Amino acid sequence: MPATTSVAPCDFVVFGGTGDLAVRKLLPALYLRDRDGQLTPETRVVAAARAGLDDAGYRDKIRGEIPRFVPADQIDDAALDRFIARLSYVEVDFAHEDGWPDLTHLLEPRPDVVRVFYLACSPQLFGPVSARLAEHGLVTEASRVVLEKPIGHDLDSAREVNDAVGAVFDEYQIFRIDHYLGKESVQNLLVTRFANTFLEPLWNNACIDHVQITVAESLGVGTRGGYYDASGALRDMVQNHLLQLLCLVAMEPPTYVDRETVRDEKLKVLQALRPMTQQDVGRLTVAGQYGPGLAEGSAVPSYQQEVEHPDSRTETFVAIKAEVQNWRWAGVPFYLRTGKRMDRRCSEIVIEFKPVPHPMFPGSDGTSEPNRLVIQLQPDEGMRLHMTAKEPGPGGIRLRPVSLNLNYEQTFQRRSPDAYERLLMDVVRGNPTLFMRRDEVEAAWAWVEPILINWAQAEHGPRRYPAGTSGPTAATTLIERDGRAWYEGSI
Amino acid sequence: MPATTSVAPCDFVVFGGTGDLAVRKLLPALYLRDRDGQLTPETRVVAAARAGLDDAGYRDKIRGEIPRFVPADQIDDAALDRFIARLSYVEVDFAHEDGWPDLTHLLEPRPDVVRVFYLACSPQLFGPVSARLAEHGLVTEASRVVLEKPIGHDLDSAREVNDAVGAVFDEYQIFRIDHYLGKESVQNLLVTRFANTFLEPLWNNACIDHVQITVAESLGVGTRGGYYDASGALRDMVQNHLLQLLCLVAMEPPTYVDRETVRDEKLKVLQALRPMTQQDVGRLTVAGQYGPGLAEGSAVPSYQQEVEHPDSRTETFVAIKAEVQNWRWAGVPFYLRTGKRMDRRCSEIVIEFKPVPHPMFPGSDGTSEPNRLVIQLQPDEGMRLHMTAKEPGPGGIRLRPVSLNLNYEQTFQRRSPDAYERLLMDVVRGNPTLFMRRDEVEAAWAWVEPILINWAQAEHGPRRYPAGTSGPTAATTLIERDGRAWYEGSI
Repeated sequence: MPATTSVAPCDFVVFGGTGDLAVRKLLPALYLRDRDGQLTPETRVVAAARAGLDDAGYRDKIRGEIPRFVPADQIDDAALDRFIARLSYVEVDFAHEDGWPDLTHLLEPRPDVVRVFYLACSPQLFGPVSARLAEHGLVTEASRVVLEKPIGHDLDSAREVNDAVGAVFDEYQIFRIDHYLGKESVQNLLVTRFANTFLEPLWNNACIDHVQITVAESLGVGTRGGYYDASGALRDMVQNHLLQLLCLVAMEPPTYVDRETVRDEKLKVLQALRPMTQQDVGRLTVAGQYGPGLAEGSAVPSYQQEVEHPDSRTETFVAIKAEVQNWRWAGVPFYLRTGKRMDRRCSEIVIEFKPVPHPMFPGSDGTSEPNRLVIQLQPDEGMRLHMTAKEPGPGGIRLRPVSLNLNYEQTFQRRSPDAYERLLMDVVRGNPTLFMRRDEVEAAWAWVEPILINWAQAEHGPRRYPAGTSGPTAATTLIERDGRAWYEGSI
Repeated sequence: MPATTSVAPCDFVVFGGTGDLAVRKLLPALYLRDRDGQLTPETRVVAAARAGLDDAGYRDKIRGEIPRFVPADQIDDAALDRFIARLSYVEVDFAHEDGWPDLTHLLEPRPDVVRVFYLACSPQLFGPVSARLAEHGLVTEASRVVLEKPIGHDLDSAREVNDAVGAVFDEYQIFRIDHYLGKESVQNLLVTRFANTFLEPLWNNACIDHVQITVAESLGVGTRGGYYDASGALRDMVQNHLLQLLCLVAMEPPTYVDRETVRDEKLKVLQALRPMTQQDVGRLTVAGQYGPGLAEGSAVPSYQQEVEHPDSRTETFVAIKAEVQNWRWAGVPFYLRTGKRMDRRCSEIVIEFKPVPHPMFPGSDGTSEPNRLVIQLQPDEGMRLHMTAKEPGPGGIRLRPVSLNLNYEQTFQRRSPDAYERLLMDVVRGNPTLFMRRDEVEAAWAWVEPILINWAQAEHGPRRYPAGTSGPTAATTLIERDGRAWYEGSI
């Protein structure tokens, strides 16, 4: 176990402390960080919610829930006892007055510790909760607020949320979380690009043919139907996760991997995305929605059946051909793709290098597989470099694709921490590198908005694809008319 | 088993057919190629020697020897019977008249088949045997002669041998064998460089810091003492194997990997090697000779004891800093190193890339391991790309060296053929790509000669190193005064 440095003493307040996100992700992450010694003895975790519990009731609840979401081999009874003892519960009505004095009473005696206000609640409440925190004098210099996506549903509403939260917190205190940025493999992308010298000379339009970013889920919309049907894949996945991944692939080397410099470079990428005209939206984007089909061998209903909205035009699949208009990337398409009820669960970034300019081996016809760097985010985190090697044998020179592999867990022989574990500690530390800054969020909305508008105005809704497939055929056409193909894990 | 195409019908004549090379390498290689269906039914293998045997005696001998040099799982009784039936034996006095009429009688009835004359005999006999072959009218258009190293012991003597053989055979018929070029990993170096697009942009003095080529043996001089004491490591290893490996690393992309183009490019590299002045020899070369020491835990005698030549100044170790004077490689040293009785048996090529120009990760001090491409030729053939990755964990970004690996046998799940198997088939096919052309051999001698001369004239003999170590300390100094270090398999 490598050395972990403890973070500053903290009151970690979770608004929505009994909700799904808190129970499944936040509290397990905090428990694991506590077990590894990263929380100081004085650190407290406060759940603010409207669940009618008290301290004891909340502690009992969480003691029961933790083992459901933390692997058994990671449970240490003493550590769990210690963690549970940190918990307290305050009954608070987020938008109104009830309970706020109790919370204030709890926090006021410790004005100097770091305060984290994690808003694991409806985005409509981000502004009101911030206002209440200010009213009760709870926002100290060392306070930070964490916002879960979605930040708005378009550019204007995002600005409203940012304005409301920004009226209370300075930008340096606001942590807009995108858990994709906390994944080991995503952070390793930064290290791979900038702690090695063999990639940077290749990382441009002279050597790279195109980039693919795929986030495919095999699940359907599940219990999130209400939220999802009002938002769709473009808002839920592309505006945040996929564009953030694109930024990390495309950004220029920052002067330092810390604080603002990385976010400055990501912003430049978002600002360099070629804006979509109405015609572009027709040509360069595909919206899809799953119909009935098969998932893991069982028949599953259509999206419309699942959300009980027979006329829903909400997209559950998006494919986009994007362009980054700058010196490095001119002419290199970035193909983005995400969907639910796909044939496999897989998040990956594929950097496909240009083909060999001149085939020089007798008998090889120049159609060998291109070199690819495949960065896997899900299900296993790892990296593969696809290359061509000589097939052993005494005959002529036969070429064969091989791959050089790095599997994260195998290589490091230890569990990769969950994205939230890292990100929560970064919040306490006050390190915003892996969080989205206001200008980034708004630049992403600005690029996405013409697509939203044109889809909404289109005669046709999204194209149907059977559940359990790779999406609508139009998505295949989108890339194949460029003489390319989606990478489907071959080799 | 991949398709193997049979080669043309052939009379394969081995001069020295009862000798060490024939028994240990050539006949096992021919057997394995026969077993895999690469020899046509009419192909014959003729041993020419002075061992007082007849066909039956020779067949018995080889039937007994093959299982000693071919792994048991590669022995197929039917295939062995078929191979043994191809063998015949002719008693020939190479330099005189005896036996030549018998050989002529055997070969003459088949003037149209490929004739391979493999001179597995003393280099002094290359000229005389060639002359006899001509006298007896045995050299047809489809004849080829194979010469084992050494071709001469300096430039003049190499020219003499080449002249003598060249008086009988055209250059296209002469196959100067260097079994290093038959190794899978060496051929794969060509494929790696020229069937992939991600290496060529890096393969130059902008991205590569330096190159190391090491051929280390753990054995001593063994039974080759007589030959070795008159030649030494520079002649035995550097002039041929190490310079050939250097050529493959440094050569420009040929138009086609076949026939003359590869050899043209290799020649250009040899011609671009910076000639050594007397001063350079003192500064840029190190000769060593092993003293008594340990090998695999047992005490072993010194070289001088082993060859029973107490005053021998023959070098058993060489280290050289070479330079390739061209646009691509200006300023990139090539460190060459070879020796006997080293601490490990290991042949490898290390391409070390430049360090990161600017450390940008907080806490990283810029001293991370450099990126390296390590091509292993021995003991296992494979390739490793050393890079830096993020160590998983929720703390800061900690950098850790990792490596992407390609092990040849594991990847391809089959035996890598011995170098001789491929090379012998290339001889029958008449494909000289992996053999040394006259101008290459002579260019290599021309570069090596000032080193030979200056060492011979030096006051001191080679520097002593204890058997079982990494060579004399002067070799360490040679590279360390440049701020670099020999790669010793770390990571």
